[in-house]
Amino acid sequence: MEKKIGRQTLRLSHPPAIISHANIGGRHEGRGPLAAYFDELSDDGFFGEKTWEKAESTMQKRVLSRALEKAGLTASDIDFVFAGDLLNQCIGTSFGLRDSGIPFYGLYGACSTMGESLALASLLLDGGFGHRTAAMTSSHFCTAERQYRMPVPYGSQRTPTAQWTATAAGCTILEAGGKGPVVTHVTCGTVEDLGITDANNMGAAMAPAALATLTAFFQDTGTKPSDYDQIVTGDLGQLGSEILQDLMEREGYPLGANYNDCGLLLFDRKRQDMHCGASGCGCSASVFNGYLLQQLENGTWKTLLFAPTGALLSPTSSFQGESIPGICHAVLIENKV
Amino acid sequence: MEKKIGRQTLRLSHPPAIISHANIGGRHEGRGPLAAYFDELSDDGFFGEKTWEKAESTMQKRVLSRALEKAGLTASDIDFVFAGDLLNQCIGTSFGLRDSGIPFYGLYGACSTMGESLALASLLLDGGFGHRTAAMTSSHFCTAERQYRMPVPYGSQRTPTAQWTATAAGCTILEAGGKGPVVTHVTCGTVEDLGITDANNMGAAMAPAALATLTAFFQDTGTKPSDYDQIVTGDLGQLGSEILQDLMEREGYPLGANYNDCGLLLFDRKRQDMHCGASGCGCSASVFNGYLLQQLENGTWKTLLFAPTGALLSPTSSFQGESIPGICHAVLIENKV
Repeated sequence: MEKKIGRQTLRLSHPPAIISHANIGGRHEGRGPLAAYFDELSDDGFFGEKTWEKAESTMQKRVLSRALEKAGLTASDIDFVFAGDLLNQCIGTSFGLRDSGIPFYGLYGACSTMGESLALASLLLDGGFGHRTAAMTSSHFCTAERQYRMPVPYGSQRTPTAQWTATAAGCTILEAGGKGPVVTHVTCGTVEDLGITDANNMGAAMAPAALATLTAFFQDTGTKPSDYDQIVTGDLGQLGSEILQDLMEREGYPLGANYNDCGLLLFDRKRQDMHCGASGCGCSASVFNGYLLQQLENGTWKTLLFAPTGALLSPTSSFQGESIPGICHAVLIENKV
Repeated sequence: MEKKIGRQTLRLSHPPAIISHANIGGRHEGRGPLAAYFDELSDDGFFGEKTWEKAESTMQKRVLSRALEKAGLTASDIDFVFAGDLLNQCIGTSFGLRDSGIPFYGLYGACSTMGESLALASLLLDGGFGHRTAAMTSSHFCTAERQYRMPVPYGSQRTPTAQWTATAAGCTILEAGGKGPVVTHVTCGTVEDLGITDANNMGAAMAPAALATLTAFFQDTGTKPSDYDQIVTGDLGQLGSEILQDLMEREGYPLGANYNDCGLLLFDRKRQDMHCGASGCGCSASVFNGYLLQQLENGTWKTLLFAPTGALLSPTSSFQGESIPGICHAVLIENKV
């Protein structure tokens, strides 16, 4: 059976199972509508550390431990971990994994990292390169603000199109031949850039990437949006997901009531004053490794097309007048039970 | 046949071939001992662009084009590209690949990225997920200096342990069942940190990672350093490679005259006043995709164990008093002709 179907999509011949998952969040995540779907919530944004960057590493360390613990495993049971984050040089991840001893492939896919890590962790198992892999990512509101925007104590006013970076992390453990929802298809993204230059409007910048990857998925698999119980992008937010819905309709793949976005799920935008919604690697990661996977596990959905999006900008590229390229990596997860 | 042998090493069952490769360098690379092994050299550090960051993207764009051209291919012939760089949010890569349309998995492995990208590009082909893949990375002296150290115009004095970031890029094209040297084994690195805190002594910080990955490779494969025609780390530089040689000897795997380091090969340290040698993702990438692969292709060597090393620090982690974790990804390349 040919694994590659179409330009971007791979059909796995031995779909690995998601045997465990965990997520961790901060104060705002704990006051949002998905609070009950978190394994751990902390009111302390420092997670017991002295700096926010160390806090982010600690979130990754804890969420990996928790996911392993839930499966009755230890770090030595994991063949490879695929992980990354938003921080310069991905220090959230490298310091988080420093004591784990797990063979590690570092990724940078901005907020698409949960999709990218799940894709590669699944492909390595399908290829027979190991028995168990982990996929993980994180973000922290305070590390992201001071790196991408302004020091948090300035209390800068936010534009209506702005999104709120989630202080959260998520980890998925996959096993070849294991028990649980399985990853059956992977669609690798391409870099898309339609010329958006407003770094406070990431949703608009990332929507074309989601469009490209989702239409590639439907074309490659010969399916349509209504064939799936749930399609979830992340983190396009309110404006980005409206743009995506418009664009998908024009392309002949209208998204219906089965469509949602992690950026709209994590917070109560109105009550929590979150403008266009949530963002950050940790948004998709924590929504996926809690609420979304639980809906698959409890049978609410049988199929979930998960498509996290990332904006591949840096403050330097914006200062130099560049537009904002985006990328979206999709994985199809099915509960065959 | 079991693909996973030992904790970190994979033996490929259908070793993909390196069918094409290209490299590009700047002024210092063009005045160094490997000048004749470059596909393109530019005296203009801006590579025709207005900023150094855009120059780095242009290097990636050009080196990919050149590698494709040498194989008589176009971007649409490549199933996946694995790439990354040292810049915050890896903008060298994402802007470099913006117009390519190639499905892209972004990596962050610091200066180990050429090893990481080769490893994953090889594994995807061995797993039957495609026919051709590309692995690519770059670095630029001026983008690295202003991001990691000081603005270049300051003309800061360099410490004797400092290395000089290469202004260079390299790209490898792999093909399942193709003609050329083949990737037969891949050893995935772990994050290693022995507590070095001097950000001007990367060689010392990365040597423990090279030790961990090389000893894992020899243990997993049941071989010893003298079994290989050439073992090349990168970019440990003078001090780091001396430390590695000491450590390997103590572990019972002494490295002999068949050992070298990309950081020692790229520049004439004395004549070019390069202190401990070259560094940067582009160092290993350009040495590998020129001099090293040519030695395999012309039969000088039949086996090359290539083990680029990366320092997983950021200026922020150093400011916060953290030590410097390292990682090393190794690939074994054999010319079976």
